[in-house]
Amino acid sequence: MREFILYSRNGVTSSGFSIEDLPGSGGRMDLVCRCIISALWISDTLRENTRIYVSLNGPPTPPVSLLFDGYKLKKISPDERNVAIWIKKALEYSDIAADIWTETHDGIYISKLDFEALLDEVDGTNIYVLDERGENIREVEFGMTPVFVLGDNMGLPKDIRDLLEDRFGKKISVGPKSYFSSQTVTLVHNELDRRIER
Amino acid sequence: MREFILYSRNGVTSSGFSIEDLPGSGGRMDLVCRCIISALWISDTLRENTRIYVSLNGPPTPPVSLLFDGYKLKKISPDERNVAIWIKKALEYSDIAADIWTETHDGIYISKLDFEALLDEVDGTNIYVLDERGENIREVEFGMTPVFVLGDNMGLPKDIRDLLEDRFGKKISVGPKSYFSSQTVTLVHNELDRRIER
Repeated sequence: MREFILYSRNGVTSSGFSIEDLPGSGGRMDLVCRCIISALWISDTLRENTRIYVSLNGPPTPPVSLLFDGYKLKKISPDERNVAIWIKKALEYSDIAADIWTETHDGIYISKLDFEALLDEVDGTNIYVLDERGENIREVEFGMTPVFVLGDNMGLPKDIRDLLEDRFGKKISVGPKSYFSSQTVTLVHNELDRRIER
Repeated sequence: MREFILYSRNGVTSSGFSIEDLPGSGGRMDLVCRCIISALWISDTLRENTRIYVSLNGPPTPPVSLLFDGYKLKKISPDERNVAIWIKKALEYSDIAADIWTETHDGIYISKLDFEALLDEVDGTNIYVLDERGENIREVEFGMTPVFVLGDNMGLPKDIRDLLEDRFGKKISVGPKSYFSSQTVTLVHNELDRRIER
């Protein structure tokens, strides 16, 4: 089992955004979609062993969290527009979302959990924080259910970084360049694919 | 310098496709867009040392080739919809495209060159073909201007594979899974990023 948590600073928290303008009206929802695609699909097959949580912290009513579960997902095609449509449908439930998960479609869930609460949902002893200054991922030993935390194009805010430090999140790096969040997800998956199946 | 050539079996060759339906009406133009994004951007910066050629072989008038040059590209944002809009604009020139390149926007070119002619455009002594059964990329020594050839979701057709064999294309693999073409591009870049800058 592999889990990702994406912290999106400006990802909007209502369904009012435009599918025709994901970067602007969605608060870089294009980036969120690409991360979900990288996390859950390889060559049109779902990665059933993977989940991705998205912590949305943009207007109008942050926080909202989404969960896409590769094991349960159905009928979703891996292109930005299609994934965005499903996010939009999920966000129609943001008014009634609570501190427990509401399933809005097979394998898609919404809640009002904040980022810290997401850390309580996962295996807190196996947290890896994607950071350009972290240890080379190729040298890192992973636990059985690793959780990978990454930020959006603006990176993780200081309070979130401090929180991850308190939780003993280990900083790891996927390479000498500053990659897109979705590219980072791909590089993490590939490294794990090359080891014993998790 | 790094170059990619994407062979798209069904990518349409006129501008008549719908931005709202890139997978269907565009002949998996969503995949083409994601490959271009993976090839030319990292974290909102252009990879100025990279070019990607796309060989479109779908209806109505194949072949058409596109070239996106990271060194010259301007004013394009790296999301599927935006890249698709620029492809559509380029394909408006498909009727007048010829065996030489026509620049349709800064860093975007169109021609009637077929896949084989694209191989004549690049450094033919440094061709690497992405193939699941190829040599592990982490073990491969690359020349100074490597050219990476990859297929779309349907893989490379037999005649193209034969052609690449005739040209001494070396088969390389990015890992033990079958990845999206765009994920493959990311994995190739990362491996080169980790070596001496090319």
